[in-house]
Amino acid sequence: MIVGIIGATGYAGAELVRLLSGHPKIKKLLLSSVSFEGQRIEDIYPNFLGRVSGELLKAEEVIASSDIVFGALPHAVGEASAAACIEKKKHYIDLSADFRFDEDETVYSAWYGKKYQFPELHKKSIYGLPELNRQKIKELSAKEPIVIGNPGCFPTGPSIGIFPAITKGLIADSASPIIIDAATGASGGGREPARAFHYPECADSAAPYKIAAHRHSPEIAHNLAVMANAASVPAPKIIFTPHLVPMNRGILTTIYIPLNEKWRVTPSNAAPLGMMPASKEIEEKTDEIRKLYADFYKDEPFVRVLPKGLFAATNRVRQSNFCDISVNVDLNGSTLIVATAIDNMVKGAAGQAVQNMNIILGFDEKDGLEAIPSLF
Amino acid sequence: MIVGIIGATGYAGAELVRLLSGHPKIKKLLLSSVSFEGQRIEDIYPNFLGRVSGELLKAEEVIASSDIVFGALPHAVGEASAAACIEKKKHYIDLSADFRFDEDETVYSAWYGKKYQFPELHKKSIYGLPELNRQKIKELSAKEPIVIGNPGCFPTGPSIGIFPAITKGLIADSASPIIIDAATGASGGGREPARAFHYPECADSAAPYKIAAHRHSPEIAHNLAVMANAASVPAPKIIFTPHLVPMNRGILTTIYIPLNEKWRVTPSNAAPLGMMPASKEIEEKTDEIRKLYADFYKDEPFVRVLPKGLFAATNRVRQSNFCDISVNVDLNGSTLIVATAIDNMVKGAAGQAVQNMNIILGFDEKDGLEAIPSLF
Amino acid sequence: MIVGIIGATGYAGAELVRLLSGHPKIKKLLLSSVSFEGQRIEDIYPNFLGRVSGELLKAEEVIASSDIVFGALPHAVGEASAAACIEKKKHYIDLSADFRFDEDETVYSAWYGKKYQFPELHKKSIYGLPELNRQKIKELSAKEPIVIGNPGCFPTGPSIGIFPAITKGLIADSASPIIIDAATGASGGGREPARAFHYPECADSAAPYKIAAHRHSPEIAHNLAVMANAASVPAPKIIFTPHLVPMNRGILTTIYIPLNEKWRVTPSNAAPLGMMPASKEIEEKTDEIRKLYADFYKDEPFVRVLPKGLFAATNRVRQSNFCDISVNVDLNGSTLIVATAIDNMVKGAAGQAVQNMNIILGFDEKDGLEAIPSLF
Amino acid sequence: MIVGIIGATGYAGAELVRLLSGHPKIKKLLLSSVSFEGQRIEDIYPNFLGRVSGELLKAEEVIASSDIVFGALPHAVGEASAAACIEKKKHYIDLSADFRFDEDETVYSAWYGKKYQFPELHKKSIYGLPELNRQKIKELSAKEPIVIGNPGCFPTGPSIGIFPAITKGLIADSASPIIIDAATGASGGGREPARAFHYPECADSAAPYKIAAHRHSPEIAHNLAVMANAASVPAPKIIFTPHLVPMNRGILTTIYIPLNEKWRVTPSNAAPLGMMPASKEIEEKTDEIRKLYADFYKDEPFVRVLPKGLFAATNRVRQSNFCDISVNVDLNGSTLIVATAIDNMVKGAAGQAVQNMNIILGFDEKDGLEAIPSLF
Repeated sequence: MIVGIIGATGYAGAELVRLLSGHPKIKKLLLSSVSFEGQRIEDIYPNFLGRVSGELLKAEEVIASSDIVFGALPHAVGEASAAACIEKKKHYIDLSADFRFDEDETVYSAWYGKKYQFPELHKKSIYGLPELNRQKIKELSAKEPIVIGNPGCFPTGPSIGIFPAITKGLIADSASPIIIDAATGASGGGREPARAFHYPECADSAAPYKIAAHRHSPEIAHNLAVMANAASVPAPKIIFTPHLVPMNRGILTTIYIPLNEKWRVTPSNAAPLGMMPASKEIEEKTDEIRKLYADFYKDEPFVRVLPKGLFAATNRVRQSNFCDISVNVDLNGSTLIVATAIDNMVKGAAGQAVQNMNIILGFDEKDGLEAIPSLF
Repeated sequence: MIVGIIGATGYAGAELVRLLSGHPKIKKLLLSSVSFEGQRIEDIYPNFLGRVSGELLKAEEVIASSDIVFGALPHAVGEASAAACIEKKKHYIDLSADFRFDEDETVYSAWYGKKYQFPELHKKSIYGLPELNRQKIKELSAKEPIVIGNPGCFPTGPSIGIFPAITKGLIADSASPIIIDAATGASGGGREPARAFHYPECADSAAPYKIAAHRHSPEIAHNLAVMANAASVPAPKIIFTPHLVPMNRGILTTIYIPLNEKWRVTPSNAAPLGMMPASKEIEEKTDEIRKLYADFYKDEPFVRVLPKGLFAATNRVRQSNFCDISVNVDLNGSTLIVATAIDNMVKGAAGQAVQNMNIILGFDEKDGLEAIPSLF
Repeated sequence: MIVGIIGATGYAGAELVRLLSGHPKIKKLLLSSVSFEGQRIEDIYPNFLGRVSGELLKAEEVIASSDIVFGALPHAVGEASAAACIEKKKHYIDLSADFRFDEDETVYSAWYGKKYQFPELHKKSIYGLPELNRQKIKELSAKEPIVIGNPGCFPTGPSIGIFPAITKGLIADSASPIIIDAATGASGGGREPARAFHYPECADSAAPYKIAAHRHSPEIAHNLAVMANAASVPAPKIIFTPHLVPMNRGILTTIYIPLNEKWRVTPSNAAPLGMMPASKEIEEKTDEIRKLYADFYKDEPFVRVLPKGLFAATNRVRQSNFCDISVNVDLNGSTLIVATAIDNMVKGAAGQAVQNMNIILGFDEKDGLEAIPSLF
Repeated sequence: MIVGIIGATGYAGAELVRLLSGHPKIKKLLLSSVSFEGQRIEDIYPNFLGRVSGELLKAEEVIASSDIVFGALPHAVGEASAAACIEKKKHYIDLSADFRFDEDETVYSAWYGKKYQFPELHKKSIYGLPELNRQKIKELSAKEPIVIGNPGCFPTGPSIGIFPAITKGLIADSASPIIIDAATGASGGGREPARAFHYPECADSAAPYKIAAHRHSPEIAHNLAVMANAASVPAPKIIFTPHLVPMNRGILTTIYIPLNEKWRVTPSNAAPLGMMPASKEIEEKTDEIRKLYADFYKDEPFVRVLPKGLFAATNRVRQSNFCDISVNVDLNGSTLIVATAIDNMVKGAAGQAVQNMNIILGFDEKDGLEAIPSLF
């Protein structure tokens, strides 16, 4: 199996190179880069010396000689590559935002400022969140070459963290939005130096950014609407706030989900305004919902619902494709607090893309993704 | 003016030493430490060499010879010091949690596991959040020696961030809680080494802790209830989740406040599920509420309501007594998103305590607290 | 192949677990821990959940049922385990300092404060630096069960970095010592919390420690003496200074080696006191020595002599068993400046131990150690 | 006193603004910036909001209306400003490298690639290291307007750390160079984003850079030659290697100085190759040299020779103008190991510049520089 990577020198592209170089079923990688064409990947990333080696070719050459192609290009420049692949009967896994909103381009164009160049492609592309769309990916790709819209780094955790609550009918059908508070490491900003990621300006500090203005907000809302539609429940509203914290990798999301009447619990200590410690009822409800989550994801190879006493932490998923989930109920008994942790470069980007490739090609879904998380 | 500090060798105590050593009205500091009695503060903190020098005495000696006393002791061991000070007619500013819940000990004892030892003291103690209680502190301390319950590090930011919304009647009178998502630096854990703050286990990682179980949760709820009572509105429910992120100092809180009918706004682009970018109506409402906040705090020496385009960030308040606030409205137009940033050691502990001292003693409130924040 | 790890819950032990769990030839791991006996490794390291699982047994049980045993115990407590293994005809790879000084216990006891308990064992133990002793390890282990004294974290880099200079006769036979200036990440301090590694006391700071007093100093000197003896040149003196810098993993060493007459070069720009930029002669000599180093290590699977323009950096060897080396000549033309970078947990501890195991068992030396370094 | 700062928006310029805003004798600051002319300093550095405010003017305006002027411009663009100031009879304190090499431009032009534009200015400029040139600065500035060449960030620590050894005749008159191994925080790279300081590429890593090629190398050599000339001893050779470590502020230098016959000590334990722990003789010699250093600097307001048991650490000088020094003798008894720590933005740049201003203007040298170091 020969795999092509277009845009191999950005952080997501280089992470694909790293993961696929250790993939047991991949014979060869073909790499392209506009910025560094003619140079070698190990010159751009000398950490690869002695392990990975390859010339940076033109995108056309890569597409022509590969069995399947990954695109790790900036938003709005990869559609042409997707089209070229499909034309050549090759699957294309796109890590940009171009194929994350299905055929309706209204939301996409409002946030990304352009229209679809190849509308036909979007009718058949699939959003590549395996926990949601595994079956669809398998079936469609068995029939014809497909385009995968690999999820954004931020949407992955909350989509997985909210999915059971929607499907199992836990969420209040009310005006109250689901609050999604997220913290990302600096690699999420990509390889190009910028003031926001200049060491002295982001180290030893924490801050939100793009409040009510981040492009991953509609992607999350869209995902939840799809899930809600499948479960025949109303689509929930969301509020999504990203924060930058001083770490290299990792995204943590803390999610506040209003529980409906059936799932709420009234604390026996009549906690005035949540001022009393958690009552027995809250602990029992927490255990019940944790079990529900654990059952929901029991066959997922990369979702770990954490046991009682553990909260999701990004250092426990470091360098791995895991999405860790912790489940709690607030002191008032009315809100489910789900925390999720992923490695933004792996489950949040390149790892998930490889997982999608494994599904498409019928490989074991864990192939190339068996790294054991390193605590530090 | 001679000032005493009991518990001078913990992080909050040492920060008091640092700030008070630069205070223009303080002639002398007297320090005590149980752990290091007989040693010198500059031996425990060699960063003080050549600037601060002092023997670590017994608490009794410090109380006997000081005009005003700070207590930076662990929770539940400082009441006796407070009692000793009051008996000797000296003001006592307590940095523990012992005097943060007024006279009713129900909530305190449920969270801190002990009863008040000197119930009479609690009837006259004042919660030392100047933005809320400045006048009360001034008036009562003018009459008799008082005990100040200096606020916890986490409650300071959200209390200041929510106060205008309560007082000006923005908050929905509903079952929906205010969500308070907070991130703290590692100095919040104090000076004693512990696994949670062991460098390899917390660096380069982000994680929540004590979800639905942190002792600052009831303190925040209590503060908001006091504010709501004064404004004759119902006390809001809250959910508070602390996170540890890899930085030395700073607390960032991102606060989600449900707006009532009067303050909500309907986006003209009929944003389905918050999927569309912010409409003009949302930007205008944001400007309106930002102005309301700016007016509310226009005379506060340490509250900065940030101009449009800036979000609260901990590196902008580093080493200072500022509380920065940014104000936004979510894409659905129904929730106010307030972010606050403080230095947890200054406005979140020692700086606020000095501010309280300045109020009690009739000094300029900024005395000793004029440090200009250093970006890094 | 069943492998035992005694002391599996310390950082080096857990790193062995992580690496060996991904080793293609290892069927099963048996783990022991005094501190956590009866618990499970994934309870102590929840990052292992779903990937590694195992009960923590008694050391005797592990030794009895394993084919080969690793000891990751504190210094001076592992000799008994080594003796038990040898008695049971099993190889023992010791990660403590107990077997790093050959049979002469003078230096060991002066630094570690105890005498050898099993002197006989030390006559046959081998210092496990494969680049130095590969052949000896192969030959002796083929004959009988051996004890490997796995190198200390600090000595590994400088030993590899200085070896070619000694063997190829570059070093001045003078009173001038080789200066070894090293910086380590905080994981080098182990798992137990201590003030030196308490986040607020070591983050955002750099400092030397144990100047002229670190136990790895005699280990380095001893290694160089062995090399010098083999090359029939005088053993060099050294000065070794460790520093702690705020990172999780990695050791960087910058080494200053006085060149002898044959290798010195006189800059043509007659640099007064090294005040002029590098002349052509210096660049040429640098290239010559770099080539010498590259040739010397051309068959080593884990030593990378970096090309011109690159300096050793710990982030280029992250999570890998590589030792990167950069080679430069100073502006005066009299000193060779070698910089080495390793991951202290891998090539500096567990990875090197696995490399030794691979040599002993006749596996491919790269088995289980093929991780591609991740830049971040 | 009105003070002008040209280049106020770079990191050194902004640090000048921060320090001078707290200076008791400065009435007003006038700021200029080419990049942000017409904007306000608090827009570029919102951390200044509410504390510092000022329009960014043209350099000419600042020079015309100031009593004394600081230049924080890139190398080779500030000479014209210096000339303009001198012409207008105003002292000029230059933070670039343009006035650090006295009248001889050979070394300067070899490293900075240009010739002096105003050679006359360089005949009368003074290198602004107060510990070396205080008297000269005082005397000359009393007579006429002067130009101060404020030292580079790296040269400050080693110059102060080696000065006593040269002056008191400790250094071996041999071919052996003094080795200076330095580690800097990322703020040393300035405000402009660049790959080397892009968070994911420098966080959690350590590496040397510009080995045998850093411009501060000749500056250090030049300083030592000046000192040696005054002491009538031969000028020492040096080797200087900078490293980047992941911290915001601070420079640590570890300096290896070969002792001459008079100062060397032979360990009584006949340490073979430095393999034995420090003998009594070494500890006594260390105490003797430490005392010599302490006496040498006993009247310096910003140099702290640390007591036995403490090593220089950057977090002990954070935000202060201190230069901390620790003194040790190596195990062989032949080398003095001096470690120095400064805050690169304060004693390494803006603080030292303010110290120079205080000397020129006859202020207390500590004015505006009394910040007590904060451990974190």
